Amino acid sequence: MNSAFRKLSFASDYMEGAHPSILSRLGEINFDKNPGYGADSICESARRKILAACSCPKGEVHFVVGGTQANALVIRSLLKPYQGVIAAESGHINVHEAGAIEAGGHKVLTLPHSSGKISAEAIERLVWSYWEDETHEHIVMPGMVYISQPTELGTLYSLDELTAISQVCRKYELPLYVDGARLAYGLACPENDVSLQDLGTLCDIFYIGGTKCGALFGEAVVIPKRGLIPHFFTLIKQQGALLAKGWLLGAQFDVLFTDGLYLRIGKPAIEAAGRIRDALKEQNIPLCFGSPTNQIFFAVDEKQRAFLREKVDSSFWEACGGGHTILRFATSWATSPEDTDALIQVLQAL
Amino acid sequence: MNSAFRKLSFASDYMEGAHPSILSRLGEINFDKNPGYGADSICESARRKILAACSCPKGEVHFVVGGTQANALVIRSLLKPYQGVIAAESGHINVHEAGAIEAGGHKVLTLPHSSGKISAEAIERLVWSYWEDETHEHIVMPGMVYISQPTELGTLYSLDELTAISQVCRKYELPLYVDGARLAYGLACPENDVSLQDLGTLCDIFYIGGTKCGALFGEAVVIPKRGLIPHFFTLIKQQGALLAKGWLLGAQFDVLFTDGLYLRIGKPAIEAAGRIRDALKEQNIPLCFGSPTNQIFFAVDEKQRAFLREKVDSSFWEACGGGHTILRFATSWATSPEDTDALIQVLQAL
Amino acid sequence: MNSAFRKLSFASDYMEGAHPSILSRLGEINFDKNPGYGADSICESARRKILAACSCPKGEVHFVVGGTQANALVIRSLLKPYQGVIAAESGHINVHEAGAIEAGGHKVLTLPHSSGKISAEAIERLVWSYWEDETHEHIVMPGMVYISQPTELGTLYSLDELTAISQVCRKYELPLYVDGARLAYGLACPENDVSLQDLGTLCDIFYIGGTKCGALFGEAVVIPKRGLIPHFFTLIKQQGALLAKGWLLGAQFDVLFTDGLYLRIGKPAIEAAGRIRDALKEQNIPLCFGSPTNQIFFAVDEKQRAFLREKVDSSFWEACGGGHTILRFATSWATSPEDTDALIQVLQAL
Amino acid sequence: MNSAFRKLSFASDYMEGAHPSILSRLGEINFDKNPGYGADSICESARRKILAACSCPKGEVHFVVGGTQANALVIRSLLKPYQGVIAAESGHINVHEAGAIEAGGHKVLTLPHSSGKISAEAIERLVWSYWEDETHEHIVMPGMVYISQPTELGTLYSLDELTAISQVCRKYELPLYVDGARLAYGLACPENDVSLQDLGTLCDIFYIGGTKCGALFGEAVVIPKRGLIPHFFTLIKQQGALLAKGWLLGAQFDVLFTDGLYLRIGKPAIEAAGRIRDALKEQNIPLCFGSPTNQIFFAVDEKQRAFLREKVDSSFWEACGGGHTILRFATSWATSPEDTDALIQVLQAL
Repeated sequence: MNSAFRKLSFASDYMEGAHPSILSRLGEINFDKNPGYGADSICESARRKILAACSCPKGEVHFVVGGTQANALVIRSLLKPYQGVIAAESGHINVHEAGAIEAGGHKVLTLPHSSGKISAEAIERLVWSYWEDETHEHIVMPGMVYISQPTELGTLYSLDELTAISQVCRKYELPLYVDGARLAYGLACPENDVSLQDLGTLCDIFYIGGTKCGALFGEAVVIPKRGLIPHFFTLIKQQGALLAKGWLLGAQFDVLFTDGLYLRIGKPAIEAAGRIRDALKEQNIPLCFGSPTNQIFFAVDEKQRAFLREKVDSSFWEACGGGHTILRFATSWATSPEDTDALIQVLQAL
Repeated sequence: MNSAFRKLSFASDYMEGAHPSILSRLGEINFDKNPGYGADSICESARRKILAACSCPKGEVHFVVGGTQANALVIRSLLKPYQGVIAAESGHINVHEAGAIEAGGHKVLTLPHSSGKISAEAIERLVWSYWEDETHEHIVMPGMVYISQPTELGTLYSLDELTAISQVCRKYELPLYVDGARLAYGLACPENDVSLQDLGTLCDIFYIGGTKCGALFGEAVVIPKRGLIPHFFTLIKQQGALLAKGWLLGAQFDVLFTDGLYLRIGKPAIEAAGRIRDALKEQNIPLCFGSPTNQIFFAVDEKQRAFLREKVDSSFWEACGGGHTILRFATSWATSPEDTDALIQVLQAL
Repeated sequence: MNSAFRKLSFASDYMEGAHPSILSRLGEINFDKNPGYGADSICESARRKILAACSCPKGEVHFVVGGTQANALVIRSLLKPYQGVIAAESGHINVHEAGAIEAGGHKVLTLPHSSGKISAEAIERLVWSYWEDETHEHIVMPGMVYISQPTELGTLYSLDELTAISQVCRKYELPLYVDGARLAYGLACPENDVSLQDLGTLCDIFYIGGTKCGALFGEAVVIPKRGLIPHFFTLIKQQGALLAKGWLLGAQFDVLFTDGLYLRIGKPAIEAAGRIRDALKEQNIPLCFGSPTNQIFFAVDEKQRAFLREKVDSSFWEACGGGHTILRFATSWATSPEDTDALIQVLQAL
Repeated sequence: MNSAFRKLSFASDYMEGAHPSILSRLGEINFDKNPGYGADSICESARRKILAACSCPKGEVHFVVGGTQANALVIRSLLKPYQGVIAAESGHINVHEAGAIEAGGHKVLTLPHSSGKISAEAIERLVWSYWEDETHEHIVMPGMVYISQPTELGTLYSLDELTAISQVCRKYELPLYVDGARLAYGLACPENDVSLQDLGTLCDIFYIGGTKCGALFGEAVVIPKRGLIPHFFTLIKQQGALLAKGWLLGAQFDVLFTDGLYLRIGKPAIEAAGRIRDALKEQNIPLCFGSPTNQIFFAVDEKQRAFLREKVDSSFWEACGGGHTILRFATSWATSPEDTDALIQVLQAL
């Protein structure tokens, strides 16, 4: 990667390793002897810090390695065999996890989405339509709600929206689960008004993303009220999600939740994304979905796409008619100002 | 852990981090931009080196995070729904993976073991008893064979034994899968006569352990003949075993398979284990199971156990009658001569 | 049920027992000693007759007890773990089987329907969109196609439509499975141009419904080309779908496929349905979905619904706005002309 | 089967159809119109009679079609994902259901058996060994107990033995499930001291066998305390175990539980078995397992086996060394005195 001409890459937000302070920490403790499976003091410290940040000191934290793993594990563990999970049609569990939820025995009950989001009203309607159906005993029962914050399209639930969803969930006793794979980019976003404490209050379970947010790998599953999932440890083991050296995950989250690093770590990504959006707007390239976070969706024609392909890696999102294509740039905590500058130069030549 | 009195720990072989050259490598590449899911050049390099070491250049290598994950994934992917996996009663998949194989829909067809090992003859008898049963269509069909090298009791299959098992497996078209969680400790053992090339020749699939053998985490699943499991990538994803930053695994195995490090890395553990066994023998403490590798099993009485408990962490293995208990010490690539000396001093005071 | 005033019931087509010749047959053979699990001569005879009727003499027939069981069994047995089944959104497996397909580990990949039917074009588009997606290895692969003939809305695929679907399926190597729960009512319908032989030629697997079509219970799963599903017997057993006294199923289908009874048995139902439709039209009650078979869907207002509720049992289908409701009447092989007359009288008073 | 020479068959107890009063009843109600899925008055009547016979008037009864189906359904529905079911090694679920329990995600935790039975003590030891293992969170938790009455080897738990098992189960909160596939043959046996009321008191769930005990097909799952399995109806549907015409099952059990027929129906089988055992003893043929019920196990040498093979169908049970084989004769409610006489004549010629 040290060639004179270096192709830019804004293809995803998990191309780099970890925040340097995480690497240092791993180096420092490398020859310590820690017990396995998360029963060590570093995990304990990380758990305390996370629960404090979420204002739910009596909750539980479980560390797992990745997002699909976290989703499959949480959903299988929470649902009864006769239940399914309500999610947006665009939800990651519905479209991009190779059928992991169904492989665990459960139907994804999809709702149409608006820029990646679903509403409290739509959830309530689905629940009613189940219970009002005279034959509902032949139908999959809605058993929990899955949303992502930020969503797969980079949008954010407002505190009002999340509160409304939480209220519907509690009214109908549906656990609310939030997939926070990119949570740091939500927390760092000026438009955001949902804090970690709000998640700790409004959700029954959520995960704080590490893989895309400064860790080498790992996600922290938070259960604000202890005891939601009995024998969760054994379920984690059974599903192959228990890291032998659990302290590797603990150490990373301990660093991320020291001195508020997790709240700050997404800022450079948001700033870079803002600058890139401005550059796209100046070129009259239409932005899509209204994402304010680190994912930038935009529509290009064939010629523009070909031009970009030479200079910068992006993600193909979807064809959108008339020969246009929606592409995605993603910035990350590790995106350098130099790369952003270089990308903007490319965009100005479009 | 810097106190003047430091309790020794020989409780397991996954208490430390990674070989220093792995940590350096991760630091060097931390800000490179790598594509996700193992589609990067580092993984590619690691795969080439592993396949060369196993003399199966046309094979496949897939990196996953942990051993239970590897086992569940491989076994679910290989078996048909009407098949089960043959294993020793003492096999890790039968006793210590929280029912992961059954959770994936399959029965573990157990055979009695001899010091953790099963024989070609016993496998053949089980297969015959299935086919000879007039009602076998109502019975789980044996569909593959699982063994561990070294076994859970630290013993090793000889090349003759493994060859015989391989021949039976091929005769009856049962894929042979070897769990190599501690493979480096087998390879470094003077008693061992089974090489990586032998595994590449005799097995249909096996994994080379990283977690317990010098990596931070990770196992390399090797398929000597490409194509054994169609769409394995999607199955890995579906089971939550696909690491987004696959290059983290690739980089670790690339280091382990550069200049033969993996073949050497277990040596200090074997030497330390030898010295500890000698010390135990001098004290007339009975050794168990005949393990020549990095796990040392030995039987103590109540008084000896109480004495040891103060000075050194070990693993409880099993009660063995007459107030005696089998304990386990495990050494690792990271065991220091100082710790071994200190342990021997403790043992001499028994 | 012998009261002077007898409320009519057209609520479903599985309210009565079996065709009298089936009951007689069961009586005749009651004290014969038959081997279990379908290995008897009666099953053998029934299989031969069914395969002859379907012009696939070298095929396989397996008898199971019910439709949901047949669907779950066939779909789980055919799909690989990384695959899902394409079906209409209105397909029985998607809406009314309590998540049995997902409980077996598979996603239902839904297509919008037109009066219960899906098209060859829509199937092909879905397959292409899968293969064209650069990330399709993270997505459930379409692995087979499920359709119902007649559909859940009483409509029929024409021979042209079915041929087109079959061609797409063969082009992309997707097994085509037809749910024939109400097949007798399709075969007896003048609008129908799809014969049993066509199913034997165009499908990879289908079931001939008994439960709703004159049997006490039971469905005959037909595989035109022997060997499609290896060890299907064991899979049937494993899923609890193997009847110990398999000859109970064989005897019923043997009667149904003697002298072409199955081809005739639906006629009275179709004639009754035609008369009921005429009566509805005369009253200007809108018919829905264009069903020509034994299910009659029609829209009523609140007052009409209340009037009907007193006199006749129907099935609620769905609310359709403006205070209107779609109801369903179902006729069956056992519907008596007297009951149809009585229903028509009721309708004339609407 | 009307030839002059008719080979006798004592191969199993499900070769004939149903008690004549059941066939008559099915004929009488054949053209009644009954609602589906067990929501009819006949099922309701049968449920009341069964609960009365079991002295648990507030319990639940669910009708399913077969025994493997009942077992898989009950065990999957009761166990949590991290639990397994304790059973005898010889238990039907462990050896003869094609892995149905594992296909549902659960391990069968086997205990050695004594003539098909397990003891309260062995259950308690297994539970303790789980909880005492420091690593039990990595191990399948015992979650319920499965036994058969009569057992697969024809033996019977005494009331004392069953009471002891029940007490252990309640002490450790393990639901106790009894497979009563051949229950009528236990109830009719003079050695038996376990009544239906005892089952209603000591078990958490059990099934009363119909298929082998005078019904065409069907088993009645009894839950003495309502509410043990929430949403059981949906689970029955999901597993393909819900018969559309549920009243077919209700009608059969209604007849079997009218005027105590079920308590009497096994008597002829027990008497015939007794006469056959006497004839075997007279010939010095060793009886096996001590079965007092309708299954007769006995050991023959090669010559005897060859002789018998010509005259009568039996079941091969197992080879037992020295060229001897254990065979099984089974009598049933439908065994005629003439057939028993003929068999005894054959045995006298051995």
